[in-house]
Amino acid sequence: MKTIIHDDFLLQNQTAKHLYHTYAKDLPIIDYHCHLNPAWIAEDHRFCDLGELLLAGDHYKWRAMRSFGIEEECVTGNASWREKFRAFAKTLTYCIGNPLYHWTHLELKRYFDIDEALTEKNADEIFDKCSALLATEGYSAKGLIARSGVEVVCTTDDPIDTLEHHKAIRESGFATKVLPTYRPDKAVNIHKDTFLPYIKQTGVKSYAELKSWLAAAIDRFHENGCRLSDHGLDFIPFGVGDATAVFDKVMAGGVATMEETQIYMTDLLCFFAREYHKRDWCMQIHVGAIRNNSTRMYRALGPDTGFDSIVETNLAENLARLMDAWDIDDTMPKTILYSLNPKDNYVLATLMGCFQKAPHRSKIQLGSGWWFNDQKDGMEAQLCALGNLGVLGAFVGMLTDSRSFVSYPRHEYFRRILCNLIGTWVEEGQYPNDEEALSAIIRGICYYNAKDYFKF
Amino acid sequence: MKTIIHDDFLLQNQTAKHLYHTYAKDLPIIDYHCHLNPAWIAEDHRFCDLGELLLAGDHYKWRAMRSFGIEEECVTGNASWREKFRAFAKTLTYCIGNPLYHWTHLELKRYFDIDEALTEKNADEIFDKCSALLATEGYSAKGLIARSGVEVVCTTDDPIDTLEHHKAIRESGFATKVLPTYRPDKAVNIHKDTFLPYIKQTGVKSYAELKSWLAAAIDRFHENGCRLSDHGLDFIPFGVGDATAVFDKVMAGGVATMEETQIYMTDLLCFFAREYHKRDWCMQIHVGAIRNNSTRMYRALGPDTGFDSIVETNLAENLARLMDAWDIDDTMPKTILYSLNPKDNYVLATLMGCFQKAPHRSKIQLGSGWWFNDQKDGMEAQLCALGNLGVLGAFVGMLTDSRSFVSYPRHEYFRRILCNLIGTWVEEGQYPNDEEALSAIIRGICYYNAKDYFKF
Amino acid sequence: MKTIIHDDFLLQNQTAKHLYHTYAKDLPIIDYHCHLNPAWIAEDHRFCDLGELLLAGDHYKWRAMRSFGIEEECVTGNASWREKFRAFAKTLTYCIGNPLYHWTHLELKRYFDIDEALTEKNADEIFDKCSALLATEGYSAKGLIARSGVEVVCTTDDPIDTLEHHKAIRESGFATKVLPTYRPDKAVNIHKDTFLPYIKQTGVKSYAELKSWLAAAIDRFHENGCRLSDHGLDFIPFGVGDATAVFDKVMAGGVATMEETQIYMTDLLCFFAREYHKRDWCMQIHVGAIRNNSTRMYRALGPDTGFDSIVETNLAENLARLMDAWDIDDTMPKTILYSLNPKDNYVLATLMGCFQKAPHRSKIQLGSGWWFNDQKDGMEAQLCALGNLGVLGAFVGMLTDSRSFVSYPRHEYFRRILCNLIGTWVEEGQYPNDEEALSAIIRGICYYNAKDYFKF
Repeated sequence: MKTIIHDDFLLQNQTAKHLYHTYAKDLPIIDYHCHLNPAWIAEDHRFCDLGELLLAGDHYKWRAMRSFGIEEECVTGNASWREKFRAFAKTLTYCIGNPLYHWTHLELKRYFDIDEALTEKNADEIFDKCSALLATEGYSAKGLIARSGVEVVCTTDDPIDTLEHHKAIRESGFATKVLPTYRPDKAVNIHKDTFLPYIKQTGVKSYAELKSWLAAAIDRFHENGCRLSDHGLDFIPFGVGDATAVFDKVMAGGVATMEETQIYMTDLLCFFAREYHKRDWCMQIHVGAIRNNSTRMYRALGPDTGFDSIVETNLAENLARLMDAWDIDDTMPKTILYSLNPKDNYVLATLMGCFQKAPHRSKIQLGSGWWFNDQKDGMEAQLCALGNLGVLGAFVGMLTDSRSFVSYPRHEYFRRILCNLIGTWVEEGQYPNDEEALSAIIRGICYYNAKDYFKF
Repeated sequence: MKTIIHDDFLLQNQTAKHLYHTYAKDLPIIDYHCHLNPAWIAEDHRFCDLGELLLAGDHYKWRAMRSFGIEEECVTGNASWREKFRAFAKTLTYCIGNPLYHWTHLELKRYFDIDEALTEKNADEIFDKCSALLATEGYSAKGLIARSGVEVVCTTDDPIDTLEHHKAIRESGFATKVLPTYRPDKAVNIHKDTFLPYIKQTGVKSYAELKSWLAAAIDRFHENGCRLSDHGLDFIPFGVGDATAVFDKVMAGGVATMEETQIYMTDLLCFFAREYHKRDWCMQIHVGAIRNNSTRMYRALGPDTGFDSIVETNLAENLARLMDAWDIDDTMPKTILYSLNPKDNYVLATLMGCFQKAPHRSKIQLGSGWWFNDQKDGMEAQLCALGNLGVLGAFVGMLTDSRSFVSYPRHEYFRRILCNLIGTWVEEGQYPNDEEALSAIIRGICYYNAKDYFKF
Repeated sequence: MKTIIHDDFLLQNQTAKHLYHTYAKDLPIIDYHCHLNPAWIAEDHRFCDLGELLLAGDHYKWRAMRSFGIEEECVTGNASWREKFRAFAKTLTYCIGNPLYHWTHLELKRYFDIDEALTEKNADEIFDKCSALLATEGYSAKGLIARSGVEVVCTTDDPIDTLEHHKAIRESGFATKVLPTYRPDKAVNIHKDTFLPYIKQTGVKSYAELKSWLAAAIDRFHENGCRLSDHGLDFIPFGVGDATAVFDKVMAGGVATMEETQIYMTDLLCFFAREYHKRDWCMQIHVGAIRNNSTRMYRALGPDTGFDSIVETNLAENLARLMDAWDIDDTMPKTILYSLNPKDNYVLATLMGCFQKAPHRSKIQLGSGWWFNDQKDGMEAQLCALGNLGVLGAFVGMLTDSRSFVSYPRHEYFRRILCNLIGTWVEEGQYPNDEEALSAIIRGICYYNAKDYFKF
């Protein structure tokens, strides 16, 4: 049996095929948001076998396996990587309609030239063949990145991070730029248990000191090539009041009310927006996850193990006010808005249209389908929302948001879906078959828009 | 004029046709949730004519007729069944894009071999032909079920029900298993007018007694073959506190606050979850309807007469907490989540992924398109959400949720839509044309998954 | 390069082409909701050039231009119309997937016979050619309406309006009926800064006087041919209490609480509903916009300049109660519900089904895709929601909601999308190829249903 991955995978018509193969396929990758561990790149980590490469830390796959009735032993437990891989292969056959089916086969094809569909039957054979390749040249962390045509990788890092690994990678002469992203969530989330220990770690005593410390970290990140921040928000806060008083109350052991929490968060996010604007950084906002829903499994496995879901909040009004606060004194930074709930696409795409400003092409961006939406339906929904409500030709395109060193084919996946959608529009007569315009649009979304927008 | 119902109705490509005709078409039906009246089965009810069969109690059709401007006289009033059927036929022509158009023609074809599209013009002729057949052998309540290939029917019953009809049916040797479903809404909804009269009917004096009484009813239902419960919730409650105090307050004539209502409901739902888990029952949660919106028509016609609509609640957080409460001591029962609001598909499909557990294949299920979503678009939206976010191959599939004895072609409708969707994916190269895998997936979703999951 | 506009634009199959060309294409237009300036019609305004015609006041285009990075100077600033048009042409090429791309080319084709796709390169040539035509006979405000085949235009007017322009148009013998629509938002929105100045303008002293004044205005509008009202609501209010007390409090300088605001708004909307019902008017409800999100740009440019977005509210419960209040004494007027948030389609389409009443065909209507949803995806979503949940064949169809004198091709756009959707259903076997039925459905939705419903 042949795999589903062939030259024209997902390309349903001639225009789509032409656009993909002529313009999209060979462009470099700018992966401007991911969760790769920079230490693994610095030390050029090698993977013991295919199981570790594909399954370690991959909570997408863990969820699927649990949903198929695989015992936890074979998901995150003590079973061997081979046993886990077998269990995954058995699961995968039933994951029809799931992006894992496509991602896995793209990974097997692009890195290991596997042409067969993975099933329970050939799992061992594929495991052995790929694991053998993993032991050869070009399959280390750096090797996998290099062979994927990646120009820039942006990791996700706490302001407290020394960035030693990023420096080490830079000094090693690695051709791919591996840059940090500034993610100060622990300083923002005053309502969480992580706040006080974090503030203690920073050593600051007052809110003013905290801001100075955070600004200094921004400068330090900037010197290390950082040009993006990232904010993961459980909800969009908005409140006006005395943020210093809230900070002091919590430092003195008090608990911030919801209203106080919003006042503090709003003030600090406004501070960040101004600082990012000064340095022409881009501010990413990720909203819409409820995390660690199973207390039982959180106690057993900790966070980021596949127990998160989509929240539902009416974010429109608070986000409108928050962005207005950034915009009012004309210090709005470049911003990318991501929501985990697909119903927010239209809300975000219309709201961002209220804060666009020259000379940027789409200064405010609608983020590519995030997490649970990082699949064909989700990407098409995001592309159509952006097309209908904004200027699709100015979109900065795809990112992996991944912890995996073999997730770069998701850029290929995105490019195929993009070319198929636009090719379909052209074939249906919704846009002229104008080679020059289509070339500029496809090349822009796949690479050049991100290059011009982020200025790494 | 020919009807739209032919062998390949809704099957748009060769793979779809092959899958449907080879694997889906002839499987038995497990209709694990419906609202058939067990008394009518026990007494083997006969229908006076086609009007009564198709229109009595069918609020879907009543709504359509009112929307087309039919006077209430011809909807639920004193007009004859023939007149009502004429008015329905006149309406139906304009119901393009409505599942009623497909359901009605499937019903006319499968039970009466009518090949013409129903219109105002042929309404009388069809009425006479079908009514004549209704008087013959095989068109009684049991006859209609039997000729539909139904293996199991699960009705919906109050804990107070004697189940005498279910016993009578069983003892009559009827080949189809007709099993009760435990639906204790009246004991849960402490904020409704129905609560006190219901508690009085049970005869219990305290919350502890109520729980004992409910547990005894669960045992009694279990002895009668019941393996599912059903909970219809106006909203998803969550609250922690003294449920006994709330019960006592209401029993003493007090009114529970919203917070107290949630405390009581949460406690009782946790009780139910534990009891169901003990017996390996499945817990169905239906959320998202606002009922009886027109007070004027409620006064005239009572409930379930076509005056309900879709509510909008932000259910994610409360449902996450409620399910966590069931999961925390590892007594989560098998659960099926249904929401009437299609925007909840992604919320539910990601939330359920947080509570999956071996050895069940998708212990927590996303319910098939419910009520207003029980149509092609709604089913496809549910199947795609489940495909993208869960393991579609483990889905327990379709149910009718119907009050009608000729609603079984909705299983055929679902199977055609399923085979068409999966066939399309295969033809588009999104899944390999692997006969063994596709056969297992289609057969599983149409029949075997439900058989394995519910263990009737 | 040829434009995308040709005879079969958007018509993807033979049935679609047949339906459009045979039944839809040549029907007159009833544009029952728009924002044309009646003064411009009365004075038969002439446009100085193509830039003014296409770009003046068109905040859809302004948003796109800002999103493409055009300086405000060339959007609403001091640049010449020619420069602005060049900037728009440059932007448009990148607006793939945006309705502006289709609307603009329909406008250029239908009014100026331009066959080329507009680009930066041919912008000047097209500007000159079209501007020359604008100086000729038949390109004045009235000329543009007349050549568009428009039978009725309904503008949007405040109760305080003298309707002098409508009278002047009528008396001028203009063949198209230009009728006012009654929009009393300033009297309803007691929580806004516009309330007190407005009440002062009316000269009334009490709530009872206000109602009398409003009823008199309704009569005056009725005499001038008005048969519709329009209510733009930031949210759906519901509250029961003493509205007079709220009115008096605000008149005395007090600020209404949210609860009081809802009491007042509910009472006044109930008053309006009764008045409209008496006169067989239609009540339009538009809900779901947040306006003027950028304070900075609001200060610079004022309202309706492209800084609005989609709000998110849980409107189901309040709207259900509000409509029940209109229905309970059987004085519910004909009503059209529009929400800007596409997630509300299913909520509205099911809610309206609870208040349908003979003899009207779909007395309560789901409004056509509004504003940000006025595009192919949005229209198809509305048509499918209505098809699945109501009686699509009774739909009153399209309106422009536009400020532009060349927006009538949006009716063509809608008709093509409608015929394509229905043609696709027929070709897929979802509805029989019944010429008589299809003709009645298409002709009804495009023209006759509106004619019968509004009775202008």
